[in-house]
Amino acid sequence: MAITRLGFKSLITVQDALNKIKSSISIRIKDIEELNLLSSLGRVSAEEIKATVDIPPFDRAAMDGYAALSEDIRGASLNNPVILKVTGKIEVGEISQLTLKTGEVMEISTGAKIPEGADVVIPYEEAKRVDGYIEVYKALPKWKNISRKGEDLRKGEIVLTKNQVIRAWNIGVLASLNITKIKVYRKPRIGILSTGSELIELGGKIEPGKIINSTKWMLAALTIENGGEFIDLGTAQDDIDEIENKIKNSIEKVDIVITIGGTSVGRKDYTIKAIKKLGAKIIFHGVSIKPGKPTGVAIYNGKPIVMLSGFPVAALVGFETFVKPIIEIVSGIKFMPLPKIRAKMSRRVASTPGVRDFLRVKVIEKNGEYYAEPLKLTGSGILSTVTKANGIIVIPEEVEGLEENEEVEVLLLRALEESN
Amino acid sequence: MAITRLGFKSLITVQDALNKIKSSISIRIKDIEELNLLSSLGRVSAEEIKATVDIPPFDRAAMDGYAALSEDIRGASLNNPVILKVTGKIEVGEISQLTLKTGEVMEISTGAKIPEGADVVIPYEEAKRVDGYIEVYKALPKWKNISRKGEDLRKGEIVLTKNQVIRAWNIGVLASLNITKIKVYRKPRIGILSTGSELIELGGKIEPGKIINSTKWMLAALTIENGGEFIDLGTAQDDIDEIENKIKNSIEKVDIVITIGGTSVGRKDYTIKAIKKLGAKIIFHGVSIKPGKPTGVAIYNGKPIVMLSGFPVAALVGFETFVKPIIEIVSGIKFMPLPKIRAKMSRRVASTPGVRDFLRVKVIEKNGEYYAEPLKLTGSGILSTVTKANGIIVIPEEVEGLEENEEVEVLLLRALEESN
Repeated sequence: MAITRLGFKSLITVQDALNKIKSSISIRIKDIEELNLLSSLGRVSAEEIKATVDIPPFDRAAMDGYAALSEDIRGASLNNPVILKVTGKIEVGEISQLTLKTGEVMEISTGAKIPEGADVVIPYEEAKRVDGYIEVYKALPKWKNISRKGEDLRKGEIVLTKNQVIRAWNIGVLASLNITKIKVYRKPRIGILSTGSELIELGGKIEPGKIINSTKWMLAALTIENGGEFIDLGTAQDDIDEIENKIKNSIEKVDIVITIGGTSVGRKDYTIKAIKKLGAKIIFHGVSIKPGKPTGVAIYNGKPIVMLSGFPVAALVGFETFVKPIIEIVSGIKFMPLPKIRAKMSRRVASTPGVRDFLRVKVIEKNGEYYAEPLKLTGSGILSTVTKANGIIVIPEEVEGLEENEEVEVLLLRALEESN
Repeated sequence: MAITRLGFKSLITVQDALNKIKSSISIRIKDIEELNLLSSLGRVSAEEIKATVDIPPFDRAAMDGYAALSEDIRGASLNNPVILKVTGKIEVGEISQLTLKTGEVMEISTGAKIPEGADVVIPYEEAKRVDGYIEVYKALPKWKNISRKGEDLRKGEIVLTKNQVIRAWNIGVLASLNITKIKVYRKPRIGILSTGSELIELGGKIEPGKIINSTKWMLAALTIENGGEFIDLGTAQDDIDEIENKIKNSIEKVDIVITIGGTSVGRKDYTIKAIKKLGAKIIFHGVSIKPGKPTGVAIYNGKPIVMLSGFPVAALVGFETFVKPIIEIVSGIKFMPLPKIRAKMSRRVASTPGVRDFLRVKVIEKNGEYYAEPLKLTGSGILSTVTKANGIIVIPEEVEGLEENEEVEVLLLRALEESN
């Protein structure tokens, strides 16, 4: 008599799973590539950059007007205007060889180097031009309307640290230092291995009882969106040896492996069996998360293997929750949090205590307030709920449900204005 | 006697400027390109897609277990188990030709098509296998643990609307329908024209009094990051005719023009003069925003021209505030809001009433609370403040300042965990 009792003996909490990921995975991409400045956008810097010059490189006018000596206009007032002689004009990009003497001003354009002697710029608005002279009615403090040399960046100052993600404004700063190329770490290579004898490749002929492997393409898109390079490791049949061999033969060329499917604890769950046969170290398997319970993480040859469910929404939740933190460790990328908005629940929703629940909702505006309407279909395979949803509510383990009109934080999946 | 009084006569509010943009700009990209599914990520759909089949295409097992007739187990309980005969096994991807009769079950894998006659799946956990039979202790409702045909998507249902931004999960849904190519609108072409005789090209030789054109590269990076194609329109000297001709000669090949610099109302402000000479319709010029006051928008040949300040931070604020909404109109892209966090002001900050102020801050965590520390340098040219900042606080027009410990919303420029 053979008795079969299957199911996860115990489930780890999401937080404990993340802690285990942090303490177990230490591999870090070290390969470096040198890119043109603009191509480095979004990449992780592999070098520290210091300012080689002061920025601005010289004291320059911050407004259009007249370069002057602040001493000369110290006593200026409406009743007692100071009259100064205009001795020349400095266009931006030009250098004046003259030294300004007391009683003199020079017309100057924003951005132009101020002449020797000058320590203030009187804006056009605060001077009345009378032929070759100006009348000034107001005192201005020393260095007013002048951008000082090195005010923005001082020579030797660090402008980009190693491991910093390069953003648009970093590119601006690096350009201002005339830096044309920058060393970055290569992108993380994320190998995706699909498993399941029921899978047909995208574009293939549909056969009865079979389905298109669509989860792979969603995960490939998430990989690219999150700074990774997608490596297609193909599809293994429901066969422990085939899955094992496919991982063994590809582990060298990727930084992270994602497997899709076969990760529950049924008798058909070949992936988890293959991972064990491979001798990979299981970090955790079975998480109190919904959807995504059978998600697991293992390490083989120092490289993380993330076992995601074949159900698309469970795979999506698994990617957001576990793959992204692993990409951060392996690549040095730091992800921004998803944008959030506050909304009121349009109706009551129950949730399993002890489980972190990912509820798909549609946020709508009604009389200037946001309401989150839970979508009815909540199966882990129901990808259409994510395409109909524009937000996700994460219901924490200690919460048993959400009440009607309760205020909640919704993670936005797409802009609210979007038609869908 | 010549009198010079310069400066903006009046400034438009940001909201009025945005309203004018919405009511004045109607041009929309219509060119279509067909892409491979994965390449369509982040692009704007140019076609409506309907499901050509039901998804799932058949009733299938949602768990591993035994396909059965719900009638048979209606009275099952711990004291009164029902005993059913296992007549076969259906692997995923296989089709059973048998029809299940009363008293019979078939072992079935998750994802496999359920056999004719079956209307419930008994999970392994709820059945005790005794040789060729199972004992069932619990009734299950009809269709329990079965994903119904068409439950996710019904044939004919719209899965992607025209003008929708294609996200990872849309790619998953489209793949499940075996769609390999998708028509999208081409990316908006954003031409960037730099102006200023003081500018040296990136990589060029530095000359006294001149500076590298760094704002262009920051704006190019912002363009790419926001789904646009960067078209370099080169640099015009401080010469009205040259600026006018460069815009005239390039307007046909771009959807949006951004000019950098020369947009104030000083005598050196050649760009605004060139725009006027060109005969472009000025939508607004001069905004109550800080930094970025001289920002303007015009329309020429139906195409928007955005005049941004040459000062990098002012240009950044102008891009975020005005260029992004214009990209949305022209391309159909919808941007997600920047992620926000709530923080307390670490010190008091003053702000000019009537002006929308963009304050750069560094958010730090202290005893589990977030504090926003305003950066001291706040000139519009000071790009280093943005690279040192990790957040921006938008101080609205009606607010005169922020108090110490006041709770504020900070727009995140980068992940807080990032070193910088």
